[in-house]
Amino acid sequence: MTLLLSVTGFDPTRWHDAMLKAAPAETIVLRPETAGDPSIRYAVVWKQPPGVLEGLPNLQAVFSLGAGVDHILADRTVPDVPIVRIVADDLTARMSEYVVWRVLDHHRRGMVYRAQQAARLWNERRQPAAGDVQVGILGLGELGRDAAEKLRLLGFKVSGWSRRERQVEGVTTFHGEEGLGAILAQSDILVVLLPLTSETRGLIDDAFLSRLKRETPLGTPVLVNAGRGGLQVDSAILRALNDNRLMEASLDVFEREPLAADSPLWRHPRVFVTPHAAASSDPEALAPIIMRQIAAHRRGEALTNIVDRAAGY
Amino acid sequence: MTLLLSVTGFDPTRWHDAMLKAAPAETIVLRPETAGDPSIRYAVVWKQPPGVLEGLPNLQAVFSLGAGVDHILADRTVPDVPIVRIVADDLTARMSEYVVWRVLDHHRRGMVYRAQQAARLWNERRQPAAGDVQVGILGLGELGRDAAEKLRLLGFKVSGWSRRERQVEGVTTFHGEEGLGAILAQSDILVVLLPLTSETRGLIDDAFLSRLKRETPLGTPVLVNAGRGGLQVDSAILRALNDNRLMEASLDVFEREPLAADSPLWRHPRVFVTPHAAASSDPEALAPIIMRQIAAHRRGEALTNIVDRAAGY
Repeated sequence: MTLLLSVTGFDPTRWHDAMLKAAPAETIVLRPETAGDPSIRYAVVWKQPPGVLEGLPNLQAVFSLGAGVDHILADRTVPDVPIVRIVADDLTARMSEYVVWRVLDHHRRGMVYRAQQAARLWNERRQPAAGDVQVGILGLGELGRDAAEKLRLLGFKVSGWSRRERQVEGVTTFHGEEGLGAILAQSDILVVLLPLTSETRGLIDDAFLSRLKRETPLGTPVLVNAGRGGLQVDSAILRALNDNRLMEASLDVFEREPLAADSPLWRHPRVFVTPHAAASSDPEALAPIIMRQIAAHRRGEALTNIVDRAAGY
Repeated sequence: MTLLLSVTGFDPTRWHDAMLKAAPAETIVLRPETAGDPSIRYAVVWKQPPGVLEGLPNLQAVFSLGAGVDHILADRTVPDVPIVRIVADDLTARMSEYVVWRVLDHHRRGMVYRAQQAARLWNERRQPAAGDVQVGILGLGELGRDAAEKLRLLGFKVSGWSRRERQVEGVTTFHGEEGLGAILAQSDILVVLLPLTSETRGLIDDAFLSRLKRETPLGTPVLVNAGRGGLQVDSAILRALNDNRLMEASLDVFEREPLAADSPLWRHPRVFVTPHAAASSDPEALAPIIMRQIAAHRRGEALTNIVDRAAGY
C-alpha cells in the first residue's frame, strides 16, 4: 500500500525524508499524475495539482500539511473521504509567537522608534499600559485561543469572535454577525486568524474596515492578518491606512502570494510584510503526527481533527 | 510638614499633579535649593541636583521615581536615611513587555524581514522553535523574574543569573562569578536587567562579550540591555557586532544619555535603539504607591523596598 505526497509551491524533500524517518516501512510516492492508482490509500498534500486525487479507488483519507485546508477544498475533484487538518503544539506555538510579537511591536510603537532611530532622534513616546489596550481576535480555534491566552498573560484586555458561540477563560467572546460589529467597534488591535471559507472570503473590505473604532489609545486601530490572504482586499487595507482609519498593519498573507513586486504594500511606511511565514510547518515536528494518525487509522482507530466540509474548516 | 519633589532631566509637573491627586492634603514643593529647610520630612527624587538633600535636619526617607537608585547614591551628600525603590506591577509589566518584544523581534528575525521588505523580497527564513532557543537573563529581581516567567510561557528555555543564589520556578539559575561564565557560554539571547553598582559598572566590555557562545540557532548571540547604560561599554558592543560575535542588539540604555548624534549605534543595521523607554514610570500609576508609603510611615508603619546601600540596590 502506498502513500501519496503531493505539493506545489515548494520542494517536498524535507517532508518526504521526515515522513520516512517517522515510518520507515511506508512506501511514499511523489507523483504529478496518479491515474487512479489503486495502491494509493492515503494522501498528504499542500496545494495539490487539481485532479491528482480524482478517481483513486482506495483513497481513505487526505491530510493537509498545515492548519488550513482551503487549498484542498478548492479542488472540487477531491473524493469524498475524510480531510484531516494538522493540529500541533509546534504550529500553534509559532503562530502565537507571531501574534504576540506583532501586537507588542505595534503597542510599543516599533515603527515610530525605528523611524526616530533613522533620524537619530532621542524622543520618548507616551506609552499606554497593556491593560488599557483591547486586542480583538477573530477566530477562536486552537490558534486564536492560544494567542488570546498569551496576550492575556502579558496584561492586554482580550476579546474574541467566532462564527459559533464559544467560551474562553478570561476572554470576552462574541459570535455571529451582530457580535462581529461589536468586536470591530471595540478593538484597538484587531488580529485575524480565521479560516478561508465561502463566508469569510473578502471579509476584510472597505465596509468591514469602516466598522472599526475611530479612536484608540494608540491613535487609530491596528490590523494584524495571519489567517489567509483571501480574507482581505489588499486595496481596501491601503485605503484605510492612507485615510488613517488604520494606524498600522502587520500582514503575513495577501490576496495573491508571493506579493507582487509592484504592490504599494511593500513600501508603505506603516505596513509590516512577512512572506506567509507566521507559522510555517516544520516537517520534523509535524510529519510524525501525520504518520501516527495514519498508523492508528490502519489499526482501525478513528481519525482526529477531521474537517467539516460544509463549514469549510 | 513638607514633601520635596526634586528631579532633573524632565518636567515634573505630571508627578506633582499625580502626587497631589493621591494626597491632596500634602504640601509638595519643587526647589533647586533647600538650605536645610526643617519642614522637609520626605523627598521624592529622580537625579536630584547634587547636595539638594544635604543637611535637611528632619528628612526621614528618600523615594526614587523609578526602579533604579544609582542616581540617588551617586550623590555622596544624601543623608543616612532610608532610600526606597519603587516596586510596582505597572513598572514590572512594562519592562516585561519590552523584554518579550525584543526577544521575539530577534527570534523571529524582524531585522531580516524588514530589510527584505525594503528590497521587496519574498523569502521565508527557517525559524527555530522557541523551545530550541536559550534566553539568559542577568538580574533576577522583580523585573528579571517576571520577564523570565513570561518568556517561559511563550516556550523559550530560560536561565537566569544573580549575584546571590536564587531559585525561580522553571528557570535554571546561576550565581556568582563562576555562574556568570556558565550563563554567558550557554545563552542564545542575553537579556541584561542588572542594577548599576560599583560591581556592575562597565560589566559588558570586550572580555565579557568574548565569553559569549560562538554559535546559536540564530547565528551568533543577541544582546538586549534594558538595565543601565553604565553597565555597558558602547564601543565594545560595536566591536562585537562588527566581528559578528554578536548577531544583533537591542539597546534601551547607553553610556551617555541622550545617545550622542554621532554615535555609530544609531546607524548600525543590526542595532535597535530606544531612548531609555523600556519601562517608563507612569506618574498616575506610581505616585499613589509612593504617597501610600509616606502615609503609612507617618502612622508608624515600616517602609518596604528599602535599598541596601552597601549592595547599591
